[in-house]
Amino acid sequence: MSKGFLLVISGPSGSGKGTVSKGLLSRNKDIVFSISATTRKPRPTEEDGVNYFFLEEEDFKKKVEDNQFLEHAFVHTNYYGTPKDFVLQQIDKGEIVLLEIDVQGALQVKKNYKNVVFVFLLPPTMDELRNRIIKRGTESEEDIERRFKNAFEELDFVGEYDYFVVNDKVENAVLDIEHIIQAEKLRVKRHSDIKKRVINKEED
Amino acid sequence: MSKGFLLVISGPSGSGKGTVSKGLLSRNKDIVFSISATTRKPRPTEEDGVNYFFLEEEDFKKKVEDNQFLEHAFVHTNYYGTPKDFVLQQIDKGEIVLLEIDVQGALQVKKNYKNVVFVFLLPPTMDELRNRIIKRGTESEEDIERRFKNAFEELDFVGEYDYFVVNDKVENAVLDIEHIIQAEKLRVKRHSDIKKRVINKEED
Repeated sequence: MSKGFLLVISGPSGSGKGTVSKGLLSRNKDIVFSISATTRKPRPTEEDGVNYFFLEEEDFKKKVEDNQFLEHAFVHTNYYGTPKDFVLQQIDKGEIVLLEIDVQGALQVKKNYKNVVFVFLLPPTMDELRNRIIKRGTESEEDIERRFKNAFEELDFVGEYDYFVVNDKVENAVLDIEHIIQAEKLRVKRHSDIKKRVINKEED
Repeated sequence: MSKGFLLVISGPSGSGKGTVSKGLLSRNKDIVFSISATTRKPRPTEEDGVNYFFLEEEDFKKKVEDNQFLEHAFVHTNYYGTPKDFVLQQIDKGEIVLLEIDVQGALQVKKNYKNVVFVFLLPPTMDELRNRIIKRGTESEEDIERRFKNAFEELDFVGEYDYFVVNDKVENAVLDIEHIIQAEKLRVKRHSDIKKRVINKEED
């Protein structure tokens, strides 16, 4: 039996984790995207169980108490979290589950679950990081500085991760992560029956 | 500073570790092949420091006592060993050093050095393993059976390795190992200055 694993793609704001995750998913249809739970109301185009698992605040808090999230956070006026049961079911079936998440969320996941491959996405330079944060627009000078300072500080957490990938060009970052996935599939520790498989396999 | 690592390609006789290692080296000119030391006399075409480090038995034994080998063995009438200093120098320079070795040798290396990526090469089926052992020729029925039995028993040691690669087609096994190398280069633990590198890097 071969187990899958949780692939956490994380990094500071401006590292490009969203773009890289999308690129990875579009090229690898077999990777399962981890769907978050939230207490915010669905938008007209959003579907429960597709974009999010939409929960009432009471239900969300109950799940937090029951340790049903790999991580969770309160952002502005809503709760967001990664439901444990969905991720674990997929992994038991041998799937690779992708979770795109900020650094604080990744550190929470690390405390709660062991079968994880942690990838830290880095901006190529600090100048480029600043450019990316500015390009998002709609933010005051102050917000940009705060974001930049946070991103700078979060780089210290790279030591908590398994792999680092420099996101200079998105295509290259995606290729790097594909190498990591292929290698991690070949990890002995994820397979309990390697000898048996060779012995029982019939000649083609 | 980025360190390299020792890549051990190992497996039972008939797993094809020699062929796969040659394929890997021919496609990846930057991989350094670990040169063995031996007490056997050089053949006319062999050069000291290229094919082997040729040593007198006395010198070899002195090096064994001084813990100068990552592993060593006595085969027929000669000693063979992997000199530690050559491997460690290359790794300090950031190189990837390939050591192709039998299972017993790999287990010795594991006891003596930590910065190693262990790859276990598997035959696709037991029938194919038997075919490969027979194809080597020049061996009695008895020798073939002994080799096959050893190979079967050595499959139990796959649990001591980091990765397993099924050597069905050599090209695919080489590709698998290339994924492993690319991923291992991105391991956080082998880099001590990831944040500094991003901070100090100038914009292109």
